[in-house]
Amino acid sequence: MHEEFMAEALNEAYEALAIGEVPVGAVVVKDGRVLGRGHNLRETVNDPTAHAEIIAVRAASDELNAWRLEGCDIYVTVEPCAMCAGALVLARIRTLVFGARDPKAGACGSIMNIVQDERLNHRIEIVEGILRDECQSLLQGFFRDLRRGVGAVERARLESE
Amino acid sequence: MHEEFMAEALNEAYEALAIGEVPVGAVVVKDGRVLGRGHNLRETVNDPTAHAEIIAVRAASDELNAWRLEGCDIYVTVEPCAMCAGALVLARIRTLVFGARDPKAGACGSIMNIVQDERLNHRIEIVEGILRDECQSLLQGFFRDLRRGVGAVERARLESE
Repeated sequence: MHEEFMAEALNEAYEALAIGEVPVGAVVVKDGRVLGRGHNLRETVNDPTAHAEIIAVRAASDELNAWRLEGCDIYVTVEPCAMCAGALVLARIRTLVFGARDPKAGACGSIMNIVQDERLNHRIEIVEGILRDECQSLLQGFFRDLRRGVGAVERARLESE
Repeated sequence: MHEEFMAEALNEAYEALAIGEVPVGAVVVKDGRVLGRGHNLRETVNDPTAHAEIIAVRAASDELNAWRLEGCDIYVTVEPCAMCAGALVLARIRTLVFGARDPKAGACGSIMNIVQDERLNHRIEIVEGILRDECQSLLQGFFRDLRRGVGAVERARLESE
């Protein structure tokens, strides 16, 4: 079950990869149905908030016509950052399922844990490690290729991660 | 100078108030010019990410055609939450100027400080307390009125804050 929806999130990550974006993908699921999809589009649309999770959450809210995503789970290929973790709490997401950890900026267990902070008014169950190897190697391959490339644009992007 | 742009952010907060939204406003400023404006629209557009700061940051990115808001400052009537604080870091905002603290969910000094976290790849200068009384009483008045009202919708919204 978790693998099936993480595969959908991975499909989204491959969409990002195909257009030169950092390959991260996400889907929001309720009652076995995908309500919202997203992949990282930061460079493409020049928007610092255009992370996979934000796009998927907004799409699901649009679909449900509600900002409270009650009973909804999100599948993300990589551990969410602080912005996305905060958004998941605001959206009242039930369960966060992610593939690989982000040791540098992950805000759901790595450098902090916003989705389970007792001081906030909602907490999210975490399931991690689903299809971890594929999620991780997709990212690692992307950054390895960037390092091999010598373009100034790619270097700048790499340094910004 | 700070007061002038905070007054612009307050204008945005009053726009939110006028349509029954929690009154929070923000403007992004560069070289003395407002590049992006936003006010809370969560209920109006049914989007959990539609906070004033996110809207203002996206508008400024659109204006500059860049996701890096280098040399940009943001003026917000209330201390940003975790989602918004994370977005400001991702956008490389230079200075965060806010009016009132949010002791329950503020993520820029109150319950945590995401914008000055040494583990993240960007840190933001904070100036707080500009037009604090007006920013705070605007919010307090809104919630007091909600409590006085007896509508189920308003109560639900109040409880969700």
